[in-house]
Amino acid sequence: MANKLTSKKDNYSQWYNDLVIQADLAENSAVRGCMVIKPYGYTLWENMQRVLDRMFKQTGHVNAYFPLFIPKSFFSKEASHVDGFAKECAIVTHYRLKNDPDGKGIVVDESAKLEEELIIRPTSETIIWNTYKNWIQSYRDLPILCNQWANVVRWEMRTRLFLRTAEFLWQEGHTAHATAEEAMEETDKMINVYAEFAEKYMALPVIKGRKSENERFAGALDTYCIEALMQDGKALQAGTSHFLGQNFAKAFDVKFLSKENKLEHVWATSWGVSTRLIGALIMAHSDDNGLIIPPKIAPIQVVIVPIYKDLETLEKISSVANDLKAKLEARNISVKYDNRDSYRSGWKFNEYELKGVPVRLAIGPKDLENNQVELFRRDTCEKQQAEIPNAVSIVEKLLEDIQQNMYDKALAFREENTRNADSWEEFMDILENKGGFVSAHWDGTKETEELIKEKSKATIRCIPFDNPQEEGKCILTQKPSKERVLFARAY
Amino acid sequence: MANKLTSKKDNYSQWYNDLVIQADLAENSAVRGCMVIKPYGYTLWENMQRVLDRMFKQTGHVNAYFPLFIPKSFFSKEASHVDGFAKECAIVTHYRLKNDPDGKGIVVDESAKLEEELIIRPTSETIIWNTYKNWIQSYRDLPILCNQWANVVRWEMRTRLFLRTAEFLWQEGHTAHATAEEAMEETDKMINVYAEFAEKYMALPVIKGRKSENERFAGALDTYCIEALMQDGKALQAGTSHFLGQNFAKAFDVKFLSKENKLEHVWATSWGVSTRLIGALIMAHSDDNGLIIPPKIAPIQVVIVPIYKDLETLEKISSVANDLKAKLEARNISVKYDNRDSYRSGWKFNEYELKGVPVRLAIGPKDLENNQVELFRRDTCEKQQAEIPNAVSIVEKLLEDIQQNMYDKALAFREENTRNADSWEEFMDILENKGGFVSAHWDGTKETEELIKEKSKATIRCIPFDNPQEEGKCILTQKPSKERVLFARAY
Repeated sequence: MANKLTSKKDNYSQWYNDLVIQADLAENSAVRGCMVIKPYGYTLWENMQRVLDRMFKQTGHVNAYFPLFIPKSFFSKEASHVDGFAKECAIVTHYRLKNDPDGKGIVVDESAKLEEELIIRPTSETIIWNTYKNWIQSYRDLPILCNQWANVVRWEMRTRLFLRTAEFLWQEGHTAHATAEEAMEETDKMINVYAEFAEKYMALPVIKGRKSENERFAGALDTYCIEALMQDGKALQAGTSHFLGQNFAKAFDVKFLSKENKLEHVWATSWGVSTRLIGALIMAHSDDNGLIIPPKIAPIQVVIVPIYKDLETLEKISSVANDLKAKLEARNISVKYDNRDSYRSGWKFNEYELKGVPVRLAIGPKDLENNQVELFRRDTCEKQQAEIPNAVSIVEKLLEDIQQNMYDKALAFREENTRNADSWEEFMDILENKGGFVSAHWDGTKETEELIKEKSKATIRCIPFDNPQEEGKCILTQKPSKERVLFARAY
Repeated sequence: MANKLTSKKDNYSQWYNDLVIQADLAENSAVRGCMVIKPYGYTLWENMQRVLDRMFKQTGHVNAYFPLFIPKSFFSKEASHVDGFAKECAIVTHYRLKNDPDGKGIVVDESAKLEEELIIRPTSETIIWNTYKNWIQSYRDLPILCNQWANVVRWEMRTRLFLRTAEFLWQEGHTAHATAEEAMEETDKMINVYAEFAEKYMALPVIKGRKSENERFAGALDTYCIEALMQDGKALQAGTSHFLGQNFAKAFDVKFLSKENKLEHVWATSWGVSTRLIGALIMAHSDDNGLIIPPKIAPIQVVIVPIYKDLETLEKISSVANDLKAKLEARNISVKYDNRDSYRSGWKFNEYELKGVPVRLAIGPKDLENNQVELFRRDTCEKQQAEIPNAVSIVEKLLEDIQQNMYDKALAFREENTRNADSWEEFMDILENKGGFVSAHWDGTKETEELIKEKSKATIRCIPFDNPQEEGKCILTQKPSKERVLFARAY
């Protein structure tokens, strides 16, 4: 561990940034707003991908790959998509370089100008629906349940590692259905897949709900989301699933012959999560000593550190360590035995705390004498001794405990930080002094929503599913309201 | 199967194109030169990726992700890289669209022009070595053994699905080492990984060798390759591994403090295979009935087709089929039971032949009476009956046989089509009338190599490893030569 992390309390934002860099997750690149995802961070992403991909396949989806480039004109085809979608995009205008005639280096060959500019996909609805047009003729071609793992680019002006970068990695599901009901069912199914993934694997409790009209995806009739709470009291949207109606089918003229022999427009959904989830993971769980990664997606679940002064002792420790490693791996637990001689054990302890390895198993000469090892759990920083013959089963149990404890802790934090506000003063007081989710009445209009945002910097995160219906008055306008909605300041 | 394939003999190139489209592997997109990889083709790629990724990790590599964009100036830093590398690239010049002030649609916002143009990566040596600069200070930071799975763009003028597309998917390994020996060892290790993958999984025999200076990667001191022979007698480069020396380290000023406390430039390799391998797979094995996919990477290894007239029979067949499916899956064999009522069994037979499913298992009413099923192997198109209790083990054995037979067949074809030529006439006669690899003497100069290429359209595919040393005369110039090299016309 080269540097000391900034403390969370002192400067949350700096703490986050320090942590991403020092834990070797990612760094800024030479290209403005684009990050390099380093091996440790990428392994975390691979672990998340593997689980999500399995869940997608179990729910009947297949992967495919569509072009990186989207002809500019495609964006204009779906009116609300082009209006609502940010226009900050990377635009390809030329296709050839040439040697600079005036000297060294290379320049753009101005004669190689594209007739129509190409946009690097910020999302792929348009190019995909243009493709689906050729795939769909009859009801027998439906549903189409495709997912794509890909990079996308949105030219963000203010970027932060993982949370908001110009290029990011994500998956985008794009499905086509014969009926509105089927498409709505799919939208719902996928937000549940995301919620299950967040809660079971990321140990991240989420609130499922629908977005207000203002916050909907451009082109969607309905956007479902999962919302999580970070330790600084700000919310983070962790995944979205959109019911797109027939908007893209109409824009790209995608029709099918129904069982009843009628020509109808196809119904659509799209849904996605991105490398942003890594930002959520960090901010929901970690502490001033570094990352805390839930065991189920940790790149390394157990690290074994030998404590020794001479090579003879190391040899004895290694024999025990390698045996434990083999036994843990036989139970599908990933283990690193760090026997590097170039670093001290104290340095290693700090390093793996910083990297959030759930369990550390240390073995010193005295442990050997007592036929035991020392176990350290990263979430609570508690230590315990374990007899060597029992160590494997204790570690296995510990990993389960850590996973559950991390979830419970995050859930308790969220519950403590979800409050009702019944007046504007109360609303602002919570936002300013406590943070978290605020459940409050709102008159249901776009105008009020925008005014609240302007005055408070809080947005409607979602209208939770199964929201209790309750008569009340809008916190801003006092107009009647039928339900509370969930506000927060958000990433 | 909607259409009949063009026959291989009539028009090999059209056969290939028909096959890619009709077997649902890929199609051209609305963007010039970019393809859509359809779910069936993408599953094939995923299967290839999974095996390769495992092999990379077993040889000590980790994955990471670097930016899609490369600042233009980076290309000028390594002189032979910029000279040798094709300048057909996608160039990003602007970062914002705006609503067209004159009417509908959107236009590029000319005020949002980048100070320095960004190139969509055609390969990532430059951006990665610019990054490694920050990762490497001491010998303790070495080696770095990174791989990246990514999309890359080369603005090809004449494109063909999988074989040559503007955007393609690939992996690129980029490693950094303390010594030349280590880097050379890595270069060698990875060409062997590729060869093993091609031969064991793709059933594709390959020749390992080094490229002549002319054919080397721009910026490399040495390029190793694996070369395969297609059924039309043309060669295809299936993978490359480059020893880059200290070229990129010098260009990007990447130095390390050695154990001896000296500041030295780092040694580099890079290596890659791409979706082009799918083209190789198709062209090496398939026939006029469609694809033939080796079992080890087939998206579906066994398809079960019921033959029935009434639903009562289907029910009986399904009971047997589902039982077989479960038993096959328990042995890690992927099975599709196609009980769709909307297609006839004859249509299904054709469809799965077209898609190259290695084994078809058909069950009709008579089979049930006789307690048997009909097995069809795609590689030889042979049928056999199997008693139901033995079916699972027979299928398992059959999959192994098919894998081996495909390799043997391709190897025999290559051996039949590798010929020595000792004169120019003989050389041209083989190229014009027989195709395949031609082993011939060459005087070792760039000039002669280029002249041979110009006159014959054949290139030096490689100088095989362990090439026997043999005195001879160059087929073109009659100058003395010490070894034969391998020529072919190539994709």
